Amino acid sequence: MFRLLLALAALGVAAQMPAPSNVRAARFPQVFEDRRVTFQIKAPTAQSVAVMPGGGRNGLGVGPFAMTKDEAGVWSVTVGPAAPGFHYYWLLVDGVPVNDPASETYFGWARQSSGIEIPDPDGAFFAAADVPHGDVHIHWYRSRVTGQMRRAMVYTPAAYRTRRDTRFPVLYLQHGSGENETSWTNQGRANWILDNLLAANRAVPMLVVMDQGYGTRPGSSGPRGNEDFGAVMIEDLVPEVDRTYRTLATPDHRALAGLSMGGGQALSIGLAHPGIFRWIGSFSGAGARNFDIATAYNGRFADAAEFRKQFRLLWIGCGQGDALYPASKSMHEKLDAQKIPHVWLDTPGLHDWNVWRRHLQDFAPRLFRP
Amino acid sequence: MFRLLLALAALGVAAQMPAPSNVRAARFPQVFEDRRVTFQIKAPTAQSVAVMPGGGRNGLGVGPFAMTKDEAGVWSVTVGPAAPGFHYYWLLVDGVPVNDPASETYFGWARQSSGIEIPDPDGAFFAAADVPHGDVHIHWYRSRVTGQMRRAMVYTPAAYRTRRDTRFPVLYLQHGSGENETSWTNQGRANWILDNLLAANRAVPMLVVMDQGYGTRPGSSGPRGNEDFGAVMIEDLVPEVDRTYRTLATPDHRALAGLSMGGGQALSIGLAHPGIFRWIGSFSGAGARNFDIATAYNGRFADAAEFRKQFRLLWIGCGQGDALYPASKSMHEKLDAQKIPHVWLDTPGLHDWNVWRRHLQDFAPRLFRP
Repeated sequence: MFRLLLALAALGVAAQMPAPSNVRAARFPQVFEDRRVTFQIKAPTAQSVAVMPGGGRNGLGVGPFAMTKDEAGVWSVTVGPAAPGFHYYWLLVDGVPVNDPASETYFGWARQSSGIEIPDPDGAFFAAADVPHGDVHIHWYRSRVTGQMRRAMVYTPAAYRTRRDTRFPVLYLQHGSGENETSWTNQGRANWILDNLLAANRAVPMLVVMDQGYGTRPGSSGPRGNEDFGAVMIEDLVPEVDRTYRTLATPDHRALAGLSMGGGQALSIGLAHPGIFRWIGSFSGAGARNFDIATAYNGRFADAAEFRKQFRLLWIGCGQGDALYPASKSMHEKLDAQKIPHVWLDTPGLHDWNVWRRHLQDFAPRLFRP
Repeated sequence: MFRLLLALAALGVAAQMPAPSNVRAARFPQVFEDRRVTFQIKAPTAQSVAVMPGGGRNGLGVGPFAMTKDEAGVWSVTVGPAAPGFHYYWLLVDGVPVNDPASETYFGWARQSSGIEIPDPDGAFFAAADVPHGDVHIHWYRSRVTGQMRRAMVYTPAAYRTRRDTRFPVLYLQHGSGENETSWTNQGRANWILDNLLAANRAVPMLVVMDQGYGTRPGSSGPRGNEDFGAVMIEDLVPEVDRTYRTLATPDHRALAGLSMGGGQALSIGLAHPGIFRWIGSFSGAGARNFDIATAYNGRFADAAEFRKQFRLLWIGCGQGDALYPASKSMHEKLDAQKIPHVWLDTPGLHDWNVWRRHLQDFAPRLFRP
């Protein structure tokens, strides 16, 4: 579809097409070849309707964007050009934030939120290509920590089906605040990023386990709801995965990474458990705030030689347009000064999925190498 | 949670609890022990807000239900008692249909729609119990018929992981009009229904493949969008599943069933392909309309002896409160008169998921028996 649009653009035709994130048969939102976007909704009884980028500003621009009504009660507005990739948004119907019925929903902002996928000319790495595809398993399990059923998403590479006596390493990969276990596949396209890396022989075949980064013990009154997620991961999730799938169940074959809140969790849980994880990644991670190299993570960075023995990879990245960028860069500099080996990825970008897709693309190929 | 509520009810406490279908940490909608439901949304700038049951009337009652606003701009209304089980609904904000941000969304009505799960005292059969759980695979594949990537959901029973050299029969299970490949697990709980049946030794371990019941060839201008779904199933999906999973790839080990539009598809595709499927089920099926026993399905019922040779099971069911009930019952009577062996399940119920969960519960144990 996007190739068609590029071809039409080359012919000088003002082509537009339904966004790939539209629900089946919805004509709008439509994306122009220059990445302007037209949103449309029929709402004859509304007094005002606007498009609001997630958080008020993101790759769609700075909202709200007031829509105008035609005589049939159809409201529309054209915004942009938008940045390529995935952006959350919602509609304001008489000031009330609601989803656009024409778009798919994605769990974010602590609710099902509308999202739009703007075709990305550099997005082949996360596209569904004609390569062998792994599976994403919706895996339900009972947590002894919380007493509840939990749902994890488990990516198994295509090789998991064909090499039936082989065991595989595991990357545990966490979402950000207000998102959930579906976000890395729905918003992040983690499965297709791995499929493409594996088809190009650029990564070691691995499982990717994506759980919900929240969990509290019964009766807990923690305000964030994620106080006991570390216990869920160590006591429930890792044993469940090793029991259920053909894994290489050693710390050399387990990685832990996450984005934003999940990056903070990767650092706090991962650095506390070198006997479980030896490869750690923090994507635009919340853990960079107020970072004191001497005391952070129970002094894990106090002794560089000891750190080298315990961990195989520490990976940190942040977009330059992210509010967390100064803290992340400062963390990197302190780690450098302390001679803690790590990878620091310093790229353009906001605090959004377009950065995190690229973080995974950079991080995954480094894992589980000798 | 529901047990707690029942216990409190026994003590005479007017207990209420967040619906199980709420997003994480959302307090409303709340369900009372008598199944009244309170909906709530903060919308200080709206002039009117109402709750609308899916389609205008369903197990929640006949809407719209006008909400009233308090001084903080929070609108609320208490409705019911509601029927147990799953019901679609939406909010009308100044007359515009939108989702409730506090509830999960479920693909139905050709969009992501809010749904509410009212605890069902007879719902143990579809609850997540302490039994071995199978996996649901999100399986992407390329369709040669449509030229596009498609997503199927594939349930593999727990035994698929433990009995690694065993091959399994397959039930293909289709959703209704305006729904999609996620509906049988999200709305229908098909995976938990199978888990529970298998744990009780009440069904033969089987895979369940749930695809999207839409598909058109490139350039097709069919109005419904499902014109070529039969070709997708026969030419793309069945071979893909047999290539990918450990299946018993014979017609004796393949069943095809669906609900509403999917029931019509099960009859039209299944009855046309006895060389592929020999077990057929139509749940509240659209195929019952204008049923002429002599000519329907290319005369498949004209010769009862021939039919007996070709098919192992024909299953038909419909709720007595369903608009399709008279047609379904009439179809059953014509099949009886023609001596076509079949199962007819005649129960109370509407055209909704609470009936279809029970249809699957009755249908699946009959499959793949000698």
